Amino acid sequence: MIQTLVAPKPTPLYAGLADSLQQLIEQGTLRPGHRVPSVRRMSLQRDVSISTVLQAYTLLESRGFLEARPQSGYYVRPRLPSHTPEPRMARPMARPSYVGVNDLTAEVLMHAADPSYLPLGAACPDHTLFPTRKLARILGAVGRNDPALLGRYSMSLAYDPLTREIARRYLLAGAPLTHDELVVTVGCCEAINLSLRAVTRPGDTVAIETPAYFGFLETIQSLGLRTLEVPTEPRTGIDLEALREALAHNDVKAVIVMPSFQNPLGSCMPDDKKERLYRLLTDFDVPAIEDDIYGDLHFGERRPKPLKAWDTDGRVLLCSSFGKTLAPSLRVGWCAPGRYLERVRRLKFTNTLGTPVVLQKTVSDFLRTGGYDHHLRSIRRAYQNQLQLFSQAILRHFPEGTRLSRPQGGFILWAELPAGVDTLQLYRDALRHHINTAPGALFSVKDRYRNCLRMNCGIPWSEPVDAALHTLGGLARAQLA
Amino acid sequence: MIQTLVAPKPTPLYAGLADSLQQLIEQGTLRPGHRVPSVRRMSLQRDVSISTVLQAYTLLESRGFLEARPQSGYYVRPRLPSHTPEPRMARPMARPSYVGVNDLTAEVLMHAADPSYLPLGAACPDHTLFPTRKLARILGAVGRNDPALLGRYSMSLAYDPLTREIARRYLLAGAPLTHDELVVTVGCCEAINLSLRAVTRPGDTVAIETPAYFGFLETIQSLGLRTLEVPTEPRTGIDLEALREALAHNDVKAVIVMPSFQNPLGSCMPDDKKERLYRLLTDFDVPAIEDDIYGDLHFGERRPKPLKAWDTDGRVLLCSSFGKTLAPSLRVGWCAPGRYLERVRRLKFTNTLGTPVVLQKTVSDFLRTGGYDHHLRSIRRAYQNQLQLFSQAILRHFPEGTRLSRPQGGFILWAELPAGVDTLQLYRDALRHHINTAPGALFSVKDRYRNCLRMNCGIPWSEPVDAALHTLGGLARAQLA
Repeated sequence: MIQTLVAPKPTPLYAGLADSLQQLIEQGTLRPGHRVPSVRRMSLQRDVSISTVLQAYTLLESRGFLEARPQSGYYVRPRLPSHTPEPRMARPMARPSYVGVNDLTAEVLMHAADPSYLPLGAACPDHTLFPTRKLARILGAVGRNDPALLGRYSMSLAYDPLTREIARRYLLAGAPLTHDELVVTVGCCEAINLSLRAVTRPGDTVAIETPAYFGFLETIQSLGLRTLEVPTEPRTGIDLEALREALAHNDVKAVIVMPSFQNPLGSCMPDDKKERLYRLLTDFDVPAIEDDIYGDLHFGERRPKPLKAWDTDGRVLLCSSFGKTLAPSLRVGWCAPGRYLERVRRLKFTNTLGTPVVLQKTVSDFLRTGGYDHHLRSIRRAYQNQLQLFSQAILRHFPEGTRLSRPQGGFILWAELPAGVDTLQLYRDALRHHINTAPGALFSVKDRYRNCLRMNCGIPWSEPVDAALHTLGGLARAQLA
Repeated sequence: MIQTLVAPKPTPLYAGLADSLQQLIEQGTLRPGHRVPSVRRMSLQRDVSISTVLQAYTLLESRGFLEARPQSGYYVRPRLPSHTPEPRMARPMARPSYVGVNDLTAEVLMHAADPSYLPLGAACPDHTLFPTRKLARILGAVGRNDPALLGRYSMSLAYDPLTREIARRYLLAGAPLTHDELVVTVGCCEAINLSLRAVTRPGDTVAIETPAYFGFLETIQSLGLRTLEVPTEPRTGIDLEALREALAHNDVKAVIVMPSFQNPLGSCMPDDKKERLYRLLTDFDVPAIEDDIYGDLHFGERRPKPLKAWDTDGRVLLCSSFGKTLAPSLRVGWCAPGRYLERVRRLKFTNTLGTPVVLQKTVSDFLRTGGYDHHLRSIRRAYQNQLQLFSQAILRHFPEGTRLSRPQGGFILWAELPAGVDTLQLYRDALRHHINTAPGALFSVKDRYRNCLRMNCGIPWSEPVDAALHTLGGLARAQLA
């Protein structure tokens, strides 16, 4: 069988084998995420030596078609078609705005909680991707071993072993923190809310990347603040020149950024850009609220450093949670507020008093004994694979001219459909097919992104998902007809 | 033996027996909370008939010295000495104030979380008074039976079976609510915070009972609001004339009240006063934020009706939680915001997104199957008894002239010491003896209550508690010397 693959000119056996496998991948016979036969099995199958197979696999790995996974074998590496156009960057905003997003946010979230809708709207992975059984076991043990914990007041003070674990992880990520500069919050949501309140007063202006996570926009509005949207480059994050202009011409009191896998663009700021961002903040003496919630979900080898790593004078309020990695319903988040520590602590006391200790201990025990890093590796692979499959299907089903983001982490895609498509209409049409989506209008306080759509790729690939994307594509095409 | 008790004039045997037992109670031989001998045993002991003992016990019950507990027998009823003077009412405040309480609050709470201090400061019962084992069992079962629950997003929407249980209980308490007008919050703290934000804007004035729970004062300040303290009568709650004056002369945007067992006074508004309060709110078109957190801890037979029971136009935002009855660390509270429902829901979304569903379900399952009412009966008895024992000890150990509140529910006492005592100094002195207290200064934004002290009587009576009260009394006396 191997003979047919050998080219007329003398080519090394392993190269021929590699070419034939590459063809199978490109044709879609071997699909992203699939395990290729083991070296031994392939050697028997193709009647070549083990070393030939190993050389072929190594070649395909270096060509980017395969990836080796320790103790597991070789897999087809998810790849995005290199010619797909990416979304375009928005234009700067002339003046800050008090206007918030509309009732759509509440509507989208209401449907997100309804299991009869396919959840392409909210940015939340499927529950099967969380270690819920292990967490449930730990939760049970926490209660059983120390029931008194339930009867003690959860003061604003954090559960110490948890903050030590969080600090340890940031040290590894290149941002040394001490555990006692952390405030444990009810999810990242409370961390952002308290941070905003710590550094602003009603009427102040807050700069934020555009497109922006709609929750931020709603929070800014609810606190009586003004939003100033700053263009963000789909791959490398906030446009520093645009930000400098914004800071120069407005009395900005805080900048909200998501340097690592921004929601919804998925952009990730290179380290040197983070450093320049920090210098800019220092030049204008502005604090930054950093949302790092997707930081652990990188596809590359190294976890991106948080902006906080460059913070030498405490102006970065780092916010995050385990909501995207461990379990969204535990609502355990944190804030490292830098020089605003005392203010955030006091606000935490008036806001929710404390974060349930039994849940803090459950997360802490999981971090120490549950194999968090192992779990992270597995969901990172799953998300990367899902993003690839979603991307391919979107390009297959959506109208010609659709642009697509290429995040290197997280599980969200941002699609820019042709100008004639109205995604608000698409959202309403899709609801009738029991598909929930997040229309672009949610992601700005201005009338932007009317033809954009954020896609939650946190749900495992399946026929119904493919069918839903097909339906969405059909609805979009119908608008253009 | 019984002969010696019979008076010269012919008295019924049972009356003589009753008198002798009453004497033993008044002398302190039989102490509050003690079980008196069973009817059968007493009949043998005193050589009288069963029916004579029964008549004697019934007489003592109607005199208020004994109480019958079903399936358990007769107990000495806790009573407060009737001649003890009660704290005096404060004077009205001329102008609203932006000033909040000082760093003392954070300090008191920090010590409250430290188990090496005797916790007379924070208003929290001892963990042994909560059904923590049963809760831990239910918590374990919730995780085990439905681990997927941990992996689902807790949206701002409440866990339905829980809100139905809460609504059912309010129906029984005379305040019919539908379950879908409830927002589940992270403790009563978040409910109050969201309610305040729903009805005010920064710069507005909020009227509140004085003395006031210091958490409210800190929250009002943190939201950029002004505090207007209104005198509160130690037994019957907020002074309606003073409130009318306050509303007439200030642009008050909200009134915070605790009609049932106010913190720190323990006052409970009679029903007709609640009705008049509601009419007053209507006259001035002001919303009320009602904190009902102690409502289930009544010593009398009937649970006090919440103010919400009179609310016909949705101006009462009812806030509460299970923090004082079931477990403080679960942080499961709620808000019935009336006409402000949509606003509170939206604020909840931006504040903490959701309340951990696994804890909502744990509470809900406990309410349905855990014997909540049975548990309430038992802690009500315990708190009533503890309040009695604390009161007696305070009157024994504290300086002559100390005035003491007489709450008919909850587990908090408010002591007004002689004018020469500085409780802030007392607080600092007591810390050196590892006793944490809550000095009066915490309970006002004005310089009030310098000689007052709030006492947490939620910890079971013991020798160390008695010794601590003795120490406090000694420190106070030393100041007067």
